[in-house]
This record gives sequence, C-alpha cells and structure tokens, in this order.
Amino acid sequence: MECQDYGLTRDTERKNLNLNPLQRGGVLPVAARKALYEFSDGYSVCDYCVGRLDEISKPEIKGFLDDLASFINTDHARTVHGAREGKFAVMHALCKPGDTIVIDGNAHYTTHVAAERAGLNIVEVPNSEYPDYKINPEGYKEVLDDLTDQGEEVSLVLLTHVDGNYGNLTDSSSIGKIAHNAGVPLLLNCAYSMGRLPIDAKAFNADFVVGSGHKSMAASGPIGVLGLKEEWADILLKKSKRHAVKELEMLGCTSRGAPVATLMASLPFVIERLKNWDNEVQDTRKFVDQMEKIEGVVQLGVKPTEHDLVRFETPVFDEIASKHPRRGFFLYEELKKRNIVGIKRGQTKWFKCSIYGFSKEQKDYIGESFIEIVNKYHEM
Amino acid sequence: MECQDYGLTRDTERKNLNLNPLQRGGVLPVAARKALYEFSDGYSVCDYCVGRLDEISKPEIKGFLDDLASFINTDHARTVHGAREGKFAVMHALCKPGDTIVIDGNAHYTTHVAAERAGLNIVEVPNSEYPDYKINPEGYKEVLDDLTDQGEEVSLVLLTHVDGNYGNLTDSSSIGKIAHNAGVPLLLNCAYSMGRLPIDAKAFNADFVVGSGHKSMAASGPIGVLGLKEEWADILLKKSKRHAVKELEMLGCTSRGAPVATLMASLPFVIERLKNWDNEVQDTRKFVDQMEKIEGVVQLGVKPTEHDLVRFETPVFDEIASKHPRRGFFLYEELKKRNIVGIKRGQTKWFKCSIYGFSKEQKDYIGESFIEIVNKYHEM
Repeated sequence: MECQDYGLTRDTERKNLNLNPLQRGGVLPVAARKALYEFSDGYSVCDYCVGRLDEISKPEIKGFLDDLASFINTDHARTVHGAREGKFAVMHALCKPGDTIVIDGNAHYTTHVAAERAGLNIVEVPNSEYPDYKINPEGYKEVLDDLTDQGEEVSLVLLTHVDGNYGNLTDSSSIGKIAHNAGVPLLLNCAYSMGRLPIDAKAFNADFVVGSGHKSMAASGPIGVLGLKEEWADILLKKSKRHAVKELEMLGCTSRGAPVATLMASLPFVIERLKNWDNEVQDTRKFVDQMEKIEGVVQLGVKPTEHDLVRFETPVFDEIASKHPRRGFFLYEELKKRNIVGIKRGQTKWFKCSIYGFSKEQKDYIGESFIEIVNKYHEM
Repeated sequence: MECQDYGLTRDTERKNLNLNPLQRGGVLPVAARKALYEFSDGYSVCDYCVGRLDEISKPEIKGFLDDLASFINTDHARTVHGAREGKFAVMHALCKPGDTIVIDGNAHYTTHVAAERAGLNIVEVPNSEYPDYKINPEGYKEVLDDLTDQGEEVSLVLLTHVDGNYGNLTDSSSIGKIAHNAGVPLLLNCAYSMGRLPIDAKAFNADFVVGSGHKSMAASGPIGVLGLKEEWADILLKKSKRHAVKELEMLGCTSRGAPVATLMASLPFVIERLKNWDNEVQDTRKFVDQMEKIEGVVQLGVKPTEHDLVRFETPVFDEIASKHPRRGFFLYEELKKRNIVGIKRGQTKWFKCSIYGFSKEQKDYIGESFIEIVNKYHEM
C-alpha cells in the first residue's frame, strides 16, 4: 500500500514566535534535545528494567522520581501520560461509578471527560462570571455544605490550579482546607502551573497533584506527573494480586520511552526557570498594559494577571476583519508577516496568548507588533 | 534543589548489537529520527488541532489513521499510549466490573493487569506446557463451552497473537471463529506482531486489535495502535455527553506529542519491511539451528519457530557460570566484549533473544559469537 504525505514538518511553529499558551511551557532545552536523541528508539528507557519503570536505575528514573517528589513536595511521584491520565487514575482508584465529585467551573474539558469515563457525577462550583471568572473558596464551601445537607456523599474535590481559559491562579490552600473539613481529599490540576511556578502540594493542602510535562515542564509529550500523599499510596498505587510489583493504575508501567528522558533532562532547567516566575508575571502584566492601550482591548480573568496565559477581548481586530478583504484571516497573516504565530487562523474577536519564556526584546516586539497592526488599519 | 545525575546516555545499547526482543522492533529509521527532531517540543502535533487529535490535518494525523486502518484491515484506528492502554480501553468500554473474560495462558502480564484494573475475572486457556507451550484453538472451545455449561456469561475473549515468552504465533482466525460462535468478540494483542508481520484483522476474525509502536512499529515510545470493527465504534469510541467531539476512552486525545510523529514517519518503512518477514523467520530458524548445535541448547516454544523472538534453555552456559570467577556475569561480559548486548546480566540458564532487523553479516556474527564463547570455555 501507498502512504499519504503526512507533512511531517513543523517549520512555521519552530522558527517563528509562537504565542499559543499550550506550546510556551513545552519547549525543550538543549539537554532534553540530547536526551531525546539518546532515547529515540522504542522502549529505550527499559534496557535495565527489573520489573517496574519507576524503579529503573539506568537511566536513574528512581532517583528522578525522588527528586520530582521533593520538587512538588509530595510523598510519592509517578510519571503518567499526561495530566488527564493522572486525573483519571485518581478518580478510577478512589471513586466508584455513580459517585459524586466537586470541581471548579473553570475546569479543563479533560476533567469532565475523565470523570465521565469513570462514571462519576460532577457538581460544579461556579466562577464569578464576566469579566473575572474567578473561583472563590467560599463557592466550594457552599457547594460542599449543600451536598452535605442533601445527604450526598462526595468522593473527591478537584481544583484547577491555573485554568486554561483565563489563566486564573486559584487559592488551593484555602480550598484544600475546606475539602478536608468536609472529609474529602483534594486533587489539584497543575497542568498550567507545575514547571512554571513553584508547587508545594503540602502547603496547597492537596492530596494529589497532576502536572503536564508537555504543557509546562519543557518535556516532549505525552508525559505527565502524578504526586500523592503517603496516606493515599495504598489505594492509588495498589499493586496487582498476580504480579506483585506492578501498580494497577499505572498498568504496570507508564512512560516507556523518550518523553520521560526529556522530562528528566529538563528538571534542572525547570527548577532554575521557576526562579524567574515573578519576572514572567511582571512581563505579562506589562504586555497586558500595552495591549489594553489599544482601543477596546480588555484582558479577561483576574487582574492584574497572576499567570502568563492571558485572554483578551479584541473588538478592534474584529472590526478591521469586517472590512478586510481577507476577513478574519488578516490578523493571522499580519502576525505571520512579522514572524509571530500561535493565534488561530480566523480568530479576531478574542484570543488567548502567552509570551512566556521569550526574551525581553521578543516580548517588546510582540506587543509592538499588535499595536503596529492596529495602527496600520486605523490610518487607512 | 540539586538534581541527581540521571545518567541520560544510552551508548551501550545504541552502539552495540542489542538482542533484547523488546528493543528489536522499535529501532527508528532515519525518517522517524527526523520527525522526532521536528516534533520534539511539548504538544508539538497540536498546533492545528480543532478539537481532536485523530482529526488533525497538519501533520496529517487523520490521513495517517486511515492508512493505518487499511494497513491492519480494521474499520477504525486510533493511537493509544501502548498495547496495554488499548487493552484497558477495550475492557473498560465493553465490560463491567465483575465480568468474566477468557484469555490465553501465554498472555502478557499487562493483559492480567489491565483486566484487574477493570475489575474483571480472568479464565485462562492453558498452553500445552513444556516444551511447546502452544495455545490450541480447541482449548478456547473447551473453556467457552464449560463456561456456557456453568451459565457464566463471557464479555470478551482475548488472544495474544505472538507471546513474549516463546514467540508462538497463534491461530487467531480459528479462535476468533470459536469466540464468535459463542457470541463473544475477540481482542487480539498484536504487540509482537503488528509492524513485524502482516495483520489482517478481518481475516483474523478479530473485533479489536492492539499494537505497540515502540515494540514492533519502529516508533518512539510510548505509543500503541487500537483498531476496531465498525460494529464496536459506538461503544469503544463513544463520545462525551458534554464535549460532543471528545471520545471518552481516549480521554479526548491520546498521543499528543513526538511519538505519533515517529509512528507516522515509520509507517512507509514498516509497510516495506513486512515484505521481508519470511526471510526474518528463515534467518531466525537458521540461528536456532546454529544455537542448537551447542550441547544442551534447546529452543522452547513451537518448532520450527514462526517468529524472531526465541527462547533457549542453555544449561551449558549455566555450567560454565558455576565454575567461572565472574559467575553468571561471564556470559554478559563475554558477549559485550564482542559488542553484543541485550541478554540480562547474570542470566545463563535460559534467555530470550532476537536477531530481527540485523544484516546477514551481523546475524552470522551473533550465532558464531555464542559458539565461540562455548568453545573458549570447553577448551579450557
């Protein structure tokens, strides 16, 4: 049989400034590119396996997982295939089909899908709606109190540490306390935070944390992190009756290949870059100020922002699009002329973006480019 | 914090002849190494996603999955994280906790673990024991008849196409027919076959097939293939109620990163190498003949072998080890001196190995090296 041409190049995204928030935290440092080269082939990390991925000592996966657990302050850490697979593992191990869980109104779709796959009922804590879309701890208390009043048992509380729509950073510490007061463990989804900003699971009152290597830890996807407190190890890391060393929720082993090598190679880099987090937030705030000088542009979500992912309402670009011969594509095309990509083709009413990890010069250039595009059409 | 040294090199396994059967089918061709370079970063294949990994057209994941489905003759194909994750997805979608499934006595441990994670009862069809360890279709018929007599309902029949202990190739076509006569669908585990030898799911009477990219399809792990017949699509590819395009068992999307790019890049290479399968089997048989000329060495499993994975009883090496100052390590060390790796350190009583994918010269050299080692010590 003949294969189609799959177009396996990524020049545009590799060689231009990519503002897609999904891609900003997953760019590999040199050490991870080297690890990818070393561990390219198949089951490359399994040469010295004696039965369990998390106990392999060449490469030092075991030592790495110890470091990873220290890094996020959990008692145990495992790699999973991504944050969603980590969430499903926790839900599947802790809950029975028909159980109820409480989640935030800004939860990622994969939280809903993982819960649905596990057969769980979801009760949502609403956000504060336009324009902040904030998740308040009191909301969790109200929902949990209501459920208790209704005699409804809750198996798990889930909180999105930083959501993917507004980049709102939530108060895990308070919400964890509320969950614990109700006798329910907290699962914190750190897909947009672990690897960008410091995670301290214990200070955050989180029983479980999940992170995403490809989203925020400078790793090649798919790979995620699952951290947990000792008290949940018997349930979540339960071993097979038949194969005494194999952990059931991990199906024995998870990341059997290159992605874990990149996550390992990137950890020292990630630890180092966290120190720059406050600067990243300051730079993003400066960028927001710059953008908001453009007529009608408004940053949604909590202000000032506490994360690099920002969402803007941009009526000005929509207005230009309505008169432009290329319609909504004009913005993508104008940006691309300036070597900027990552805003979806056709999108002008609003967009999400991130300038995380760029140099000062690049960040300034990106802000100036948006202004230049507006000015170009306003002068016409 | 300071990270440990993770020893992220793989010189020994990359630069020597690696006989580990787990590693033989996962070596990347040049095109896949290039794809790995292009798609190194994070969520690299998701730039042009409009909601589902399997519908992405840049790179052409959608077209690739169509090709993949043709390649294995199924109505649908998806990538999963590996064969085990594919098996779990089928079990989780089709069965309820407490259900009974019938599997072969040579099933991989991940079949047991996936079933245990899904809460299923396993009934095994025994193999023919020493020295063939063969799985006979009649065994499936007996077990299924017995269960019917006991009024026990069976939700799924699973067969290991080629097992990882003896490399026995099973008669899927007959066993699928037996399963269908009992009104039960067949899941065929092709981790050691898909990508090495031709797979025709329909001719094999398989409702579901799973394959392993890192084990047998020249891809960077972790990645697997899940193929299914149209009649099971509603169950296995069921969509979320809340997120209409997201498939529940896939948690929305699976291989969001580099491994799928390598699997895509490798497909034309894999299609081509299948044509050489008969030669690979001939070469393995020749290698077995050569090995069995060594006193006491016996190939276990069906003879002549029908696969490249072979298991030998090697009392002669165990005998040498008993007198050698390095004990069981001598074999590993003697092989390594000859640039051959992949037999576990300390193992001498028996071992599994494969010469799949090596050149004629390399294959001859490997056989001669074992003989040379025996002769060296027998002359002493």
